[in-house]
Amino acid sequence: MSVLLKLAQKFNCFYLSGFHSSECKPFIVEGFQVGLIRPDVMRQLINFPEVFHITRGCVELNPAFRDYEGRSTKIDQVLRKLRDKNIFVTLKGWRDECYEVKTEFCTRSLLKMDRCATCLFGIRNYGVTINGYIRHPQKGQCLWFQKRSATKQTWPGKWDSMVSGGLSVGHGIFETAHKEAMEEASVPTSLLNKLTSAGCVSFYFESERGLFPNTEFVFDLELPLDFIPENADGEVECFEILPIKQCLPKILAPDFKTTSAPVVLDFLVRHGVITPENEPDYLKIIELLHIPLQNIYGNHYHIKENGVAIGDNV
Amino acid sequence: MSVLLKLAQKFNCFYLSGFHSSECKPFIVEGFQVGLIRPDVMRQLINFPEVFHITRGCVELNPAFRDYEGRSTKIDQVLRKLRDKNIFVTLKGWRDECYEVKTEFCTRSLLKMDRCATCLFGIRNYGVTINGYIRHPQKGQCLWFQKRSATKQTWPGKWDSMVSGGLSVGHGIFETAHKEAMEEASVPTSLLNKLTSAGCVSFYFESERGLFPNTEFVFDLELPLDFIPENADGEVECFEILPIKQCLPKILAPDFKTTSAPVVLDFLVRHGVITPENEPDYLKIIELLHIPLQNIYGNHYHIKENGVAIGDNV
Repeated sequence: MSVLLKLAQKFNCFYLSGFHSSECKPFIVEGFQVGLIRPDVMRQLINFPEVFHITRGCVELNPAFRDYEGRSTKIDQVLRKLRDKNIFVTLKGWRDECYEVKTEFCTRSLLKMDRCATCLFGIRNYGVTINGYIRHPQKGQCLWFQKRSATKQTWPGKWDSMVSGGLSVGHGIFETAHKEAMEEASVPTSLLNKLTSAGCVSFYFESERGLFPNTEFVFDLELPLDFIPENADGEVECFEILPIKQCLPKILAPDFKTTSAPVVLDFLVRHGVITPENEPDYLKIIELLHIPLQNIYGNHYHIKENGVAIGDNV
Repeated sequence: MSVLLKLAQKFNCFYLSGFHSSECKPFIVEGFQVGLIRPDVMRQLINFPEVFHITRGCVELNPAFRDYEGRSTKIDQVLRKLRDKNIFVTLKGWRDECYEVKTEFCTRSLLKMDRCATCLFGIRNYGVTINGYIRHPQKGQCLWFQKRSATKQTWPGKWDSMVSGGLSVGHGIFETAHKEAMEEASVPTSLLNKLTSAGCVSFYFESERGLFPNTEFVFDLELPLDFIPENADGEVECFEILPIKQCLPKILAPDFKTTSAPVVLDFLVRHGVITPENEPDYLKIIELLHIPLQNIYGNHYHIKENGVAIGDNV
């Protein structure tokens, strides 16, 4: 097995485990599965029976909370109590910034939740990443990377793509890309008109923090040779530019953020650096960059009287 | 649902049917699943009990045929008999050109089979497609298409990508891309050094002919403004070039080859024409361009005495 396939398996460790299906339970809101809940989280939610109905087959948000605001408020109250109990490491990184919780990306939101908490419920989350690159007359194509600040809540001090950010409540995809490019790397608006939408990657990672079914909207941005990114929000330690052939060792190193490797791999595939003739596991790797996250929770659940949830494909 | 998602569902009709799992049986060679067999094919194979062992759980190629040549010869004999009986429309297109039959793309081949017959066994097949394009100073990016000759065995008279071809026995991926570019469109070697590997698409289509789990290795080729493709092998009726914004109506029209639409969709995604802001089903479409074909048959089968095959993930 090639080192790149091993990397693709690493950021898909939860997908390839078969979702630990015997241990995790579907999380149901308004009859729709929106996530998966691990046993460690279940043991805490059981203390909030007025909010979560835990049965043999699933964890259901009390259907008495009928609207977006009501559901968001109740979940927020539980999460703040759990944060105060200091049980989950991820809740130490409280952001006061929420992600939407939906059945599919393009459907209406059922509730919102602080972004540090979505991994406790296996909620799909969405972000944008910008591959900033130049075409150097001697060195050829070169790609910019950022080193994350040592004070970041997640993956401090790790190397990462030039610009990325989560899609929080109230912000669009292109809007987030523009905002992050300006905040993280001081890319002026005049350069952002070259920003090109280039697809997405989807993968399902698990860590001690929780579950990460992640989809990244991917953008390429060709930059002038003399542009040097400068951080404006204190979240970046430094930037570095590398000839494209040196990017593989970069993302394979232990100081590269595991969940940012997929976007770089996708860039190297699309730009002809990783090819079917130099990478034996080419097809498997590309399939692992696009796992069917929009489908995995695509079930409508009927909650039966005996508490067993039955999933139907809709 | 958007028209593009409907198209992606059309070329994935078999994948989205759940592989008609109650009707189709795994096709097993040397203990590995390499395909799926529909009931109409099963009814014919039952007449060759010395070649195919058909049980409740699967169809197994007689394990007494122990090597590549032996297996290939036996299957070839059966296929020629079936061709003479005129039962399967696909066998009328006999090519005298074989595809390899493997458990995974990068593993050794277990046997070879005429390319017109692989759809009867649901064998994964592989091809190359070249997106030939120009950057026009006024019209912007424009993409070349070919109209298939009216005498082609499959999809006669339909519109298609500029250049494509199946990966037959003995030919490499880049080699096939170069060969087809020269034969189908007279692209000179001097222009082929700009050929850029750009990924792959995978989908699972079904038609009256059979089952098509297809993977296409995708190449982009920027061409000079004054290059006009000319066919050299009689398989193309004509070529046409379209501004990139007019490509969506082209692939949505009924005279476009359904199984060539994925590569064009992927091109339009990678080049920023289809974006998450103009296509509501963006994520689902991209996932349906990369279904996990390398995994679906990834089982090692133990043939039990009672004839029921048990699959284990390997």
